[in-house]
Amino acid sequence: MADWLEALDRLAGDRAKAGLTRRLRPRAAGDAVVDLAGNDYLGLSTHPRVVAAARQAIEAYGLGATGSRLVRGSTDAHAALEHTLAAWTGAQDALVFSSGYLANLAVVRAVGAVCDLVVSDAYNHASLIDGCRISGLPVTVAPHNDPGAVAAILDAHPGRAAVVTESVFSVDGDLAPLAELYEVTSARGALLIVDDAHALGLLGAAGAGGVAAAGLAGRSDVIVTATLSKSLGGAGGVIAGPAPFIRHLVDTGRTFIYDTAPPPAVVAGVLAAVEVARAADDRRQVLFRRGAEVVTRLRQAGFDVRKPAAGVLSVPAPGPEAAVAWAADCRDRGVAVGCFRPPSTPDGSSRLRLTLNAGVSAADFARALNVIVECAP
Amino acid sequence: MADWLEALDRLAGDRAKAGLTRRLRPRAAGDAVVDLAGNDYLGLSTHPRVVAAARQAIEAYGLGATGSRLVRGSTDAHAALEHTLAAWTGAQDALVFSSGYLANLAVVRAVGAVCDLVVSDAYNHASLIDGCRISGLPVTVAPHNDPGAVAAILDAHPGRAAVVTESVFSVDGDLAPLAELYEVTSARGALLIVDDAHALGLLGAAGAGGVAAAGLAGRSDVIVTATLSKSLGGAGGVIAGPAPFIRHLVDTGRTFIYDTAPPPAVVAGVLAAVEVARAADDRRQVLFRRGAEVVTRLRQAGFDVRKPAAGVLSVPAPGPEAAVAWAADCRDRGVAVGCFRPPSTPDGSSRLRLTLNAGVSAADFARALNVIVECAP
Ligand SMILES: Cc1ncc(COP(=O)(O)O)c(C=O)c1O
Ligand SMILES: Cc1ncc(COP(=O)(O)O)c(C=O)c1O
Repeated sequence: MADWLEALDRLAGDRAKAGLTRRLRPRAAGDAVVDLAGNDYLGLSTHPRVVAAARQAIEAYGLGATGSRLVRGSTDAHAALEHTLAAWTGAQDALVFSSGYLANLAVVRAVGAVCDLVVSDAYNHASLIDGCRISGLPVTVAPHNDPGAVAAILDAHPGRAAVVTESVFSVDGDLAPLAELYEVTSARGALLIVDDAHALGLLGAAGAGGVAAAGLAGRSDVIVTATLSKSLGGAGGVIAGPAPFIRHLVDTGRTFIYDTAPPPAVVAGVLAAVEVARAADDRRQVLFRRGAEVVTRLRQAGFDVRKPAAGVLSVPAPGPEAAVAWAADCRDRGVAVGCFRPPSTPDGSSRLRLTLNAGVSAADFARALNVIVECAP
Repeated sequence: MADWLEALDRLAGDRAKAGLTRRLRPRAAGDAVVDLAGNDYLGLSTHPRVVAAARQAIEAYGLGATGSRLVRGSTDAHAALEHTLAAWTGAQDALVFSSGYLANLAVVRAVGAVCDLVVSDAYNHASLIDGCRISGLPVTVAPHNDPGAVAAILDAHPGRAAVVTESVFSVDGDLAPLAELYEVTSARGALLIVDDAHALGLLGAAGAGGVAAAGLAGRSDVIVTATLSKSLGGAGGVIAGPAPFIRHLVDTGRTFIYDTAPPPAVVAGVLAAVEVARAADDRRQVLFRRGAEVVTRLRQAGFDVRKPAAGVLSVPAPGPEAAVAWAADCRDRGVAVGCFRPPSTPDGSSRLRLTLNAGVSAADFARALNVIVECAP
């Protein structure tokens, strides 16, 4: 074996010893597993209207977009989705990317045109961290959900800064104090960038998102990003904000310009999903009721869980091996749950990560709750 | 207007003065435009088998993958595509990403585990440049297509390096001297990373790509990346290489782990496209014949064009305004061509970028050639 591959094998051995080996487990179409691990919060990935819209667009446009958004990749479907996402989130304009990851890389780099510091929450998602890194801007990591600490960082900085946070955090599901953060940023001429990935479709009137729920929709110093792959059941990313910022992205955003546009069928499916999501108060109610139920059941079983802000919930496990065994036992009994261990957890502890899914039947959900409790360490 | 938006407006004004404003032009489904601008080289985005496979997978799986590949995002379709791509390109294993951009970010960072220098061709794609930047490795930019210069850089470097190049370059369509580069890298214990985006499906036996065409398929010190959005007519990216490297990516690749898997329907459509592409010698012949035709016609018209290595061809224009006007006149007459101006061109000159598309009818292609010549400055 080539010596560099031997070196990689040694690293793999080290990871295996530390319990950090990851495994791909392909699932079959329509498997009977109850999904409390994915991010299809509203169950829209299989909604008939979403499926029909995607299918029709495949017939109309073919599969791929065939080029960058600036060459042949922009279709009527892309324009319609951007219009609808802007209207929904209350932003002046919106731009669709092929993933939330690439949208987050673009947003931090773009504010570099007018900012000279990024202040990034300690628990931010990998894509935001990479966005900070690739921006070339100086980065200060702020303690998690601490507006006072952000204020102190901004007060010590003479230039204009951008503060970057998630709304609902992806691992623990807790909510950022967006209104307080905005008070801090707006009073100091800073921008607030919010990754609304886990709140869009779930929080706010008509599911308009965490930024809208905090009363910050349409502010001229707030920028929203999100993925279209969670409550909207599709794929892709979006940046929504003031029109001049969106124009700046079209002209200069490397991960926008030099990337193939998302497939028209995916875009059309997501557009249908937005329409369903806006009217889906019933699904949101199911989701929140289930959140309360999980908390009650797990607290009864002796676990220290917090009421989820939206659809993500984290359950502490005694250690990494216990977390892995717990998730594996659930899987063996037909229930998919997430399992987070260091270094994927921001604070170094291990836990199950449960996601709520309004598309799961009531009977399956009840059974899944029993399984989780019965498999608990 | 907020002062940061005023600052962005001033920057937009500067770009407008420099002729660098970009515009989105959404197209309708089935528009009558002849496409010599997109990257659907084999016309597979609308191939009936591709469309049918994608449609069936939407019915079977729903739209989105609903999670990361490591959570709920891996389906049978993803596993089958990876198996097929590895077999096709002659690699030990392959890993699918949601875009070629994210695959390129992953590949350079991953070799950082065993390399301490990246040598990057001066004309490399934005995604490779960003991959270098985000890797945190020291980067040396090598003159374009210059194996001697790469040898000198490697000779001056005591550690292990990774040399990164495209096979067919995305702007000018010229071919990297892969066999010579491999002689240089293999003799010095360096890795060779090749972005085969514009050659996969077009070069090599059964379209296995530029790396295969150079006789380098399956080498233990060669890694291939590609997008699934060009000759395969879909979307997504792939890294193909030795199994221990792919395993390293599964365990540590941030843009793999923290990104939603590509939609099963897109993956299934691309899988069908690979099957069509492997047997599509007829389409490849059409493409190469058209390449020769374009060169003959444009040389007769007085333009200095090189025979394309695959499906991309660059035509020098007298200046940025002339290039823009040329492309606009073609568009007004129903022919889409690409237009590249600084700073998007590696050498600071302006040109049309034409792409060949075996899916365009012979009559449309002949008409398009006339239009391009008639609109020439
Ligand atoms: C908070 C957050 N931001 C961004 C992303 C990336 O979005 P995408 O999967 O569309 O790349 C994710 C998860 O995937 C996420 O959880
Ligand atoms: C050479 C090259 N590499 C990578 C990419 C990125 O691939 P994707 O569009 O799938 O992100 C492109 C173009 O899009 C390209 O031309």
